[in-house]
Amino acid sequence: MRALVKTRAAAGAELRTVPVPTPGPGDVLIRVEAASLCGTDLHIYRWDDWAESRLGGSLPRIFGHEMAGRVVAHGPGLLGRLAIPLGTLVAAETHLVDGSCYQCRTGREHVCANLRILGIDIDGAFAEYVVLPAHNAWASEGLRPEIAAIQEPMGNAVHAAFTEEIAGQTVVVLGCGPIGLMAVAIADLAGAARVFATDINPERLAMARTLGADETIDAREDVVARLREATGGVGVDIVLEMSGAESAIRQGFAAVTNGGRVSLLGIPSRPITLDLSDDVIFKGIRVYGITGRKMFETWYRTQALLAQGLDLSPIVTHTMPLERFADAFDLLAAGHGGKVVLLPQWA
Amino acid sequence: MRALVKTRAAAGAELRTVPVPTPGPGDVLIRVEAASLCGTDLHIYRWDDWAESRLGGSLPRIFGHEMAGRVVAHGPGLLGRLAIPLGTLVAAETHLVDGSCYQCRTGREHVCANLRILGIDIDGAFAEYVVLPAHNAWASEGLRPEIAAIQEPMGNAVHAAFTEEIAGQTVVVLGCGPIGLMAVAIADLAGAARVFATDINPERLAMARTLGADETIDAREDVVARLREATGGVGVDIVLEMSGAESAIRQGFAAVTNGGRVSLLGIPSRPITLDLSDDVIFKGIRVYGITGRKMFETWYRTQALLAQGLDLSPIVTHTMPLERFADAFDLLAAGHGGKVVLLPQWA
Amino acid sequence: MRALVKTRAAAGAELRTVPVPTPGPGDVLIRVEAASLCGTDLHIYRWDDWAESRLGGSLPRIFGHEMAGRVVAHGPGLLGRLAIPLGTLVAAETHLVDGSCYQCRTGREHVCANLRILGIDIDGAFAEYVVLPAHNAWASEGLRPEIAAIQEPMGNAVHAAFTEEIAGQTVVVLGCGPIGLMAVAIADLAGAARVFATDINPERLAMARTLGADETIDAREDVVARLREATGGVGVDIVLEMSGAESAIRQGFAAVTNGGRVSLLGIPSRPITLDLSDDVIFKGIRVYGITGRKMFETWYRTQALLAQGLDLSPIVTHTMPLERFADAFDLLAAGHGGKVVLLPQWA
Amino acid sequence: MRALVKTRAAAGAELRTVPVPTPGPGDVLIRVEAASLCGTDLHIYRWDDWAESRLGGSLPRIFGHEMAGRVVAHGPGLLGRLAIPLGTLVAAETHLVDGSCYQCRTGREHVCANLRILGIDIDGAFAEYVVLPAHNAWASEGLRPEIAAIQEPMGNAVHAAFTEEIAGQTVVVLGCGPIGLMAVAIADLAGAARVFATDINPERLAMARTLGADETIDAREDVVARLREATGGVGVDIVLEMSGAESAIRQGFAAVTNGGRVSLLGIPSRPITLDLSDDVIFKGIRVYGITGRKMFETWYRTQALLAQGLDLSPIVTHTMPLERFADAFDLLAAGHGGKVVLLPQWA
Repeated sequence: MRALVKTRAAAGAELRTVPVPTPGPGDVLIRVEAASLCGTDLHIYRWDDWAESRLGGSLPRIFGHEMAGRVVAHGPGLLGRLAIPLGTLVAAETHLVDGSCYQCRTGREHVCANLRILGIDIDGAFAEYVVLPAHNAWASEGLRPEIAAIQEPMGNAVHAAFTEEIAGQTVVVLGCGPIGLMAVAIADLAGAARVFATDINPERLAMARTLGADETIDAREDVVARLREATGGVGVDIVLEMSGAESAIRQGFAAVTNGGRVSLLGIPSRPITLDLSDDVIFKGIRVYGITGRKMFETWYRTQALLAQGLDLSPIVTHTMPLERFADAFDLLAAGHGGKVVLLPQWA
Repeated sequence: MRALVKTRAAAGAELRTVPVPTPGPGDVLIRVEAASLCGTDLHIYRWDDWAESRLGGSLPRIFGHEMAGRVVAHGPGLLGRLAIPLGTLVAAETHLVDGSCYQCRTGREHVCANLRILGIDIDGAFAEYVVLPAHNAWASEGLRPEIAAIQEPMGNAVHAAFTEEIAGQTVVVLGCGPIGLMAVAIADLAGAARVFATDINPERLAMARTLGADETIDAREDVVARLREATGGVGVDIVLEMSGAESAIRQGFAAVTNGGRVSLLGIPSRPITLDLSDDVIFKGIRVYGITGRKMFETWYRTQALLAQGLDLSPIVTHTMPLERFADAFDLLAAGHGGKVVLLPQWA
Repeated sequence: MRALVKTRAAAGAELRTVPVPTPGPGDVLIRVEAASLCGTDLHIYRWDDWAESRLGGSLPRIFGHEMAGRVVAHGPGLLGRLAIPLGTLVAAETHLVDGSCYQCRTGREHVCANLRILGIDIDGAFAEYVVLPAHNAWASEGLRPEIAAIQEPMGNAVHAAFTEEIAGQTVVVLGCGPIGLMAVAIADLAGAARVFATDINPERLAMARTLGADETIDAREDVVARLREATGGVGVDIVLEMSGAESAIRQGFAAVTNGGRVSLLGIPSRPITLDLSDDVIFKGIRVYGITGRKMFETWYRTQALLAQGLDLSPIVTHTMPLERFADAFDLLAAGHGGKVVLLPQWA
Repeated sequence: MRALVKTRAAAGAELRTVPVPTPGPGDVLIRVEAASLCGTDLHIYRWDDWAESRLGGSLPRIFGHEMAGRVVAHGPGLLGRLAIPLGTLVAAETHLVDGSCYQCRTGREHVCANLRILGIDIDGAFAEYVVLPAHNAWASEGLRPEIAAIQEPMGNAVHAAFTEEIAGQTVVVLGCGPIGLMAVAIADLAGAARVFATDINPERLAMARTLGADETIDAREDVVARLREATGGVGVDIVLEMSGAESAIRQGFAAVTNGGRVSLLGIPSRPITLDLSDDVIFKGIRVYGITGRKMFETWYRTQALLAQGLDLSPIVTHTMPLERFADAFDLLAAGHGGKVVLLPQWA
C-alpha cells in the first residue's frame, strides 16, 4: 500500500509503498478513507525539537492519526461489540490505553499512565490501511468520511466545553484554529449566553462568526478590556483556551470572572509565566487541563451534537489525495482556520 | 387600589378596593403591570383541601405571585443594589427567605427553613400594587411585562433542566403545561440531543413541537416503549417530570437509562407508590427534587436564555384585565398549555 | 470439588461433589478461601418469590458471590494486568459486565445494561473453586481472606457514603446489618460531624456504637424527632438507607434537612408509598440509587480505608467450614448484624 | 482604647490610644479577646512593596483580622439572626462583601467583585474593640478565644481540602505554616489514605507528624521522587499547596497523578513559570484557586470538625498581651509553624 512515512530525522516525509499491516489480537484493519492533518503532524513533518525528542528513536514511522475508514479485517480474539462488522465506517480514538493502570481503572482512560498515540507510537493513518485496537474504533455510519475523521479534534473541543454546564453562560474561545472554531459552534449550539472568539487572522474570525460567534476580537487588541466591556464589567464565565499562545493564556486568566473557569487545551511550546496570585488564587477560579477525549462519554456527546445538525462542513476547507501531502502541509503551515484532509482512496 | 382577595374559605374570590400597601424596612412598592396565573392560584381559587390547610387561618388574602411591575416607592433602609431606581421594571422571586437559617447560609436560600411565599403568606400580586422585599426584586428592563412575569415559572424549568449538563443528552419532558413547555424550549436551546414531550392534550403537544420537541407522545400510549425504541433501547438520559401525575412519574422512572437522572418538579397531590428497587436502586440513578429557583444563579441563567432569543411569546396565550379574573381561572381550569396573564393596569 | 448447589426450586441446598470448572477466555480459576453470606443468598436458600423469578430457569446453580481466594489457573488470552500471577489473593467484583453497552462505555459499568451476577447468572463461590473474569478479580494481598471477601459489601457502603463529601456533615445510617455497620465505620473514619444509627436490634446498635456511631436510636422510637432534636432542629445532612424497610425509608426522607441527600441502598421487597411533594420536591433534596460498586474507583477507596486501619474484624462474627452451611444460614436468618463466612478450605 | 496602628509608610507600628469605634447600620461592636497574626500582617508590619501598593493611600490603619471577641453593642437596623445577643463570643469572617454583585448573588460571596478585607480596607482587630458587619460575625460559643480566632485560617484549609472528596485519597500538603498544619490535621481527620507533608523547617515537620502526617519530607530533597515512590509510582491524588513557594508549586504539579487535583492557597509573591503542557494539560488535572472561605458552608464545616475533636491547641504556640506586638512579629518572622496570638484583654 502507499503510505506517508517519516523516514529520517529531518524535515519532510516520503510517500512509499509498504506492506499492508496485519491486525494483531484485539485489533481491526481499516481501509482509510479520510485522514486529516493536525498541528502535531506539522511538528513531525518539520521535525522540530519536540518531534526529535518524541519520535527520534522510532523511525521509520507512518504518521497521521485523525482518521476515518472502513473495517476490512479482524485480528484474533474479537468478541461482542469489538467484532465490528466488516464494512463499518469507523473513526479513531487516537489514545491507545493499557486498560490496567490506576487511571484506566478509575474512569480516566484518556490520561492513561502508559498512553500511546496513533501515528506517533505506532504506525498511523496517512496510508491506505491502518491497524487500530478495536476498542478505539468508533462506529460512525452516516457521516461523510472527512467529517467522521474530524470527530477526534471535535471531541477535544467537546471535552473542553463541557467540563461544566455552558448554557446561559458567557464564553470566550481564544484561538480560532479548527478546534477553536469547533468550540465556537459547540458553545453556540449548547446555548451559551454569548460566544466571543479571538484570533489574529481575520479569515479565521470570519469563520468564527459564520459558526456562531456573537462577537470576534483581534487578539492584538486589548482583549481583556473588550471582554470586560461586553460583559458589563463582570468578565466571562468560561474561557476555552485553544491557541497555546502565552499572550492568549494571559488574556484568558485576566478576563475570566471571579469564580469562573478556564479550560486549557492549546499546548504551549514552552513554559508560561503566570501571576497565580491575582489570576487564579484571589479569583477563586477552576482551571482544567484538557487532553484527548473522555472515553467514551465525549464520543457519545460528539455524535449527538453532529446528529442534531452541528455542521462542520465549513471547517473542512480542503480535501486532496495522499500524493499531494506536500501541498497539504503547506496549507496547514499557512494558518487558515480550516481542516486539510487527505483522502487515501482518491480515485 | 383594586385587588383580587380571597375573603372566605370557599370557592371564588372578590375584586375589592383596598388601601395601597406601605413598604416596610427593606421593601419596595411595585405597581403591578402583569400577574400570571399558576396552578397554585387555581387551588386557592377553588379552595381545595390543600388550600384549606395552607391558607385556612390567614384570610383575607390577596393572592397571585408570578408578576412584573415597576418600582414606585422604597421602604426605609435600602442600600446599594437594593435601592432599585424608581421606575425600574422588576419581576418577583416569590420565595421569601429569612437569610439566617442553615439553608440560607449555605447556598440554598430556595429551601429556606422558614420559607414564606408571596400571595400565600403575605399579600400578593393580583392587585394594582404589591409590596416585595427588595432582595426578591429582579430587574427585568427590556422585557415585556407579561414575559418578565413568567420568568418565575421559567426559572423552575431552568432549575430542573440544569441540575446537570443537558447538551448532547436525550431528554423527556413529562407534562406540557406552561413549565413543561418552557422546559422543552430550554432543552432545545441548550443543545439536547433529542427532546421528547408527553401530555394527554393534543393542543399542548402541538405547542411542544412548536417550541422545539423532536417527538411528542400521547401520555396514554406506552410511553416507555416509545422512548426505549426512540433511543435504540437505551432509555433517556434525563427525565424532567413536570406533571405531578402518578402515571407520568412511573413512566419517567421506567424510561430513564441506567445511571441517568430524574428531576421531579410537578407536585403530586397525594403519595405515590414507587418500585424503588427496580426503578431507582438497581438503575443507579440520581433523583432531584426541584422547587423554586436557585437564588439567584437560576435568574441569571433565565435572563441569559431570554437574551439569546428563547421566545416565550407562544406560551402567553391570553392577557386580560384584572376584572376578568373569573374568565382567567376558567381558562386555566380548561387545561390549555398556555399562560393566562392579568394586566392590572389595563386601560 | 465440593460445592453448595441449588438443585431444586424449593427451600434448601445440597452439598455435592462436582467437577472443578475450567476457566474460559479472559477468566481465572480461583481456589476459594472465604465466601461470606449475603441477604441475597438467603433469598435463594429459602427460595422465595424473588428467587423463583430470578433463578427459576437456571438450576442447578452453585450460589454465593462475596468471596476471596487465590488464583490457581489462567484461561486463554490473558494479557497485561489481567494475567494475575498464580497464587495471588483476590476478591471478586461480583458485577459481570459486557464492556460494550452505553453504560459500560460511559463510566458506569456497575449498571451495565446486560449485567450478570456471580452466583446467580453463573456458578458462584460456595465451592472449593470458582471461575471469574480476570477483569473482576481485585488483588487483595495482605488481607485475611474473610476480610478480603467482605470488601464487596463494604464497597456498597463506600459507594453509598461517598456520592458526595461526608466530612463535617451529620449522617444517619438506617439499618445496622453488615453493610450498615460498615457504613457507620466509614462515616466515622471519614470525619462525619456526627454519626447516628438506627435498628430494632439492640445487639446491632451496640455493634454500631463500637464501630463509631455517636448515637444509636431504636427504629421503633420517633426517629425523626430524635434526629431533629440532635441536630438543633435542622435535620441530618446525609441519610444512608441500608435496611430496605418502608418505615426506615420514610424516616430517612422525613429526617433529611432541606437540600440534603439520601442514598438508597437497602432493597425494599415491595413498592413503597412516598410523599414526593413534601419529602423530596419541597425539600429540594438529592436521592441516589446505589447498587454495586463503581468499577473500580470504589475498590481503590475501599482498599485505602482498610489500609488506614478501618477494622472490619468485629463484623466477621462467625467462620465455619462449607459443610456447616445450614448452621450458617440459620445464623444469617436470626438477624445478628455480623457476617457469617464459609471457609471451603477448612482443614 | 489601645490599638496597634500602622501610622506611617515604613516598617513597624504604634500602640496608640484611640476612640472606641461606633457600629454603623448593620454592624456590631466587638470587644476583642484574641487576635492572631497572619502572614499578611507581617507584610504590613514590614511594609513591603505589596503593603505599599495595597495600603499606601489609607493610613493610619488599625490592622489585624483573625480574631474572636464578644459582641458588646449593636448598630442600628439589626434584625433576626443579625441581632446577635450581647455577650456572644464571635469570630470574624474577614471578607467584607457587597452582597450585590454577580458573585455575591451566585453563591460565591468569598470572591465578591468589590471585596474589602478587615484590617486592610477598614480598621481591624489588633485593638481592644473592633466594628464588624453582623453578617460577618460567626457565633463561636464554647471555644477558647484563641481557637475561635483561628477558625478563619482553619477555614482556608478546610476550603482547600474539601473542594472534592478527600477520604481514601493520597494527599500532600506543601508547606507547614499554620494553615498547612491545619490542612494536615483536617486531611487526617477526614480519612485521607495517606497524608504527606513538606517543609524546610524540621520543627514544622515534627508538628505535622504530631497533627497526623503519615510521612514528612524535607522540601529540599527530591520531593517528587519521594512521593512517586511512596505511592507506588502513581503520584498523589490531591495536592494542597500552602507555601506560595515556586519550588513547592512546581513539585506539586509534578507529583500529582494524572487526572488528580491541585488546590492553590499559598500566595506567590511574584509570577511563577509553569510547564502547562506537561504539568496541567497532558495530565488532565483540575487546579483550584482557593481564597477565603465559602460563606458560610466552610464555617459550618470548620465548626463541625472542631466539635468532633480536631485539636488546634498544638498550633497556638504563643499568646501574649497586645503590648508585646514587637515580640509577636519577631516570632512570626522567625518562621515557626505555630500561631502567635495577641490577647488585647490580657489583665
